[in-house]
Amino acid sequence: LLAITMGDVNGIGPEILAKSLARPEPWAWCQPLVVGSVDALEEARRFAPECPVPIAGDAPVPRVVGVAVCEAGQPTPERRPGELDVEAGRAAAEWIIAATRRCLDGRVAGMVTCPIHKVGFQRAGYDFAGHTDLIAHLCGIQDYRMCLFADEMRIVHNSAHCSLLDAIAAITTPRIVDSVHIADSALRRMGIASPRIAVAGLNPHAGEAGAFGREEIEAIRPAIQACRERGMNCSGPYPPDAVFRLMQRGDFDVVIAMYHDQGHIPLKLIAMDKGVNVTLGIPIVRTSVDHGTAYEIAGKGVADESSLIAAVRLAAQLAGCGVGEHA
Amino acid sequence: LLAITMGDVNGIGPEILAKSLARPEPWAWCQPLVVGSVDALEEARRFAPECPVPIAGDAPVPRVVGVAVCEAGQPTPERRPGELDVEAGRAAAEWIIAATRRCLDGRVAGMVTCPIHKVGFQRAGYDFAGHTDLIAHLCGIQDYRMCLFADEMRIVHNSAHCSLLDAIAAITTPRIVDSVHIADSALRRMGIASPRIAVAGLNPHAGEAGAFGREEIEAIRPAIQACRERGMNCSGPYPPDAVFRLMQRGDFDVVIAMYHDQGHIPLKLIAMDKGVNVTLGIPIVRTSVDHGTAYEIAGKGVADESSLIAAVRLAAQLAGCGVGEHA
Repeated sequence: LLAITMGDVNGIGPEILAKSLARPEPWAWCQPLVVGSVDALEEARRFAPECPVPIAGDAPVPRVVGVAVCEAGQPTPERRPGELDVEAGRAAAEWIIAATRRCLDGRVAGMVTCPIHKVGFQRAGYDFAGHTDLIAHLCGIQDYRMCLFADEMRIVHNSAHCSLLDAIAAITTPRIVDSVHIADSALRRMGIASPRIAVAGLNPHAGEAGAFGREEIEAIRPAIQACRERGMNCSGPYPPDAVFRLMQRGDFDVVIAMYHDQGHIPLKLIAMDKGVNVTLGIPIVRTSVDHGTAYEIAGKGVADESSLIAAVRLAAQLAGCGVGEHA
Repeated sequence: LLAITMGDVNGIGPEILAKSLARPEPWAWCQPLVVGSVDALEEARRFAPECPVPIAGDAPVPRVVGVAVCEAGQPTPERRPGELDVEAGRAAAEWIIAATRRCLDGRVAGMVTCPIHKVGFQRAGYDFAGHTDLIAHLCGIQDYRMCLFADEMRIVHNSAHCSLLDAIAAITTPRIVDSVHIADSALRRMGIASPRIAVAGLNPHAGEAGAFGREEIEAIRPAIQACRERGMNCSGPYPPDAVFRLMQRGDFDVVIAMYHDQGHIPLKLIAMDKGVNVTLGIPIVRTSVDHGTAYEIAGKGVADESSLIAAVRLAAQLAGCGVGEHA
């Protein structure tokens, strides 16, 4: 059982949910529990008539009967596609809280989140930078890792939403060891026996033996050494402008990126909006679409459900639902 | 008349030179003057019999007769493909010096460089990090800009071969203004009337209004403003993980990257080894292949001349040889 939160009802969340549930794949990977509005999903079925009918409740429903939708006691927000609305923000936040609680108490095996609008969410009084901060807070975790996965490209970021100077300050041996360990554990859960982990350098040419910076020598190499001693199949540091090509051609299962853009630049270029955002380092399985609410196309039927499909599949893999790496 | 230096005779330089000169395009763009070894080029003709015969001398030669090769008084180094040799390093350096002098005194309109091996070059007693430092030194310039061009992707780096911390220290308004100005001038020389220049941010999401770093607010925005006031068609700062896609789809003619890997990661991923390295901010036209000596495949006839062809074309464009942007 996987929880899928609807996100902001005025964004493309309900539409990509209906389009995804109309397809057979998600049902093969998991038993879905939508956490959101019955009415909003019913409306979105006009774009995807094959989507099973929404049935209010927490219990899983066979696909031929319908799809379970948990409203978590929220009044259904009015639907005004493309408009910022505080009530929609509040409902989106409460659905995330409900899904996270169900993950923590084991009622669901993981959660997948559709996009929220950060401003609506914050105006509704939720004092978090976004989704992930709220989820981590509910899990009692301050320090998690933001990851981007897209097909054979998997990137775990040593740090994410901070200045580049702060990202450099986070290049410490213990933190990099944690990043490698988090990546190793996640890929093992996905069924990769001995994940091949590449650690990127921080500086051009991975520092060129100290000529262009010493972080590789002082922090990154010792971390790689420590991980190898613990039995992880980890190597590097690799020149940042080469390592993603090496992963693309199949040399590695995952790259540890030293800062947000080191990983985001290549992945956004290669995977466009087909990537999946994964939060690792928290005690629950959580994936997310790699795009926003897309207010400008909400309610028009033109939204692309690929990222949500990929996010559901990855959550099922991480939750050990028996979905193979190459399923 | 464009000078093309042969680089290290034990690398793939002679082979890619012969293969390029066997093709009609370079002759349509310029009158080539090889600066290198007659014997080495003659030997490499076995991989490209259509290459005109090398003729020693400084004067241009019609293609039907041969190709002019200036040896610059260097004894021909022994050819041992794939082997590091100090004499080959010395010859490569002297050919670069000869070509640069010919650019400076106007005997040639620009120069294109084939790869050298940094170690051979340095062991021969040339105390420079590489090609570009030597050329800049001969031009009396300390501060130049390293650029990567590949088809519609053009990237000018605000800084290049230094640590990421030093690159952040180089994020100053005057330096960014210089970077934009250098890009603007180069693209105008290439025949683009009002180059559309995108300036990347330094931090994730271009700083997200100061939440993830203040360099955008304190240095980058003022530089963009100053450039716009001077009439340059310049905008930004853009999120680093979006701006290269925008250029790829045709929104911009060039991106100003804030550090080496911000530009190198996307370009190496998209253009593989088909890119051209350009040195801007020096008083001569200089382009270079975007790969090394490739000792491991030297002398085997399998080297790819695409990057050299592209480098010759770009040098001809920058030198105003009448090669259109889309020729």
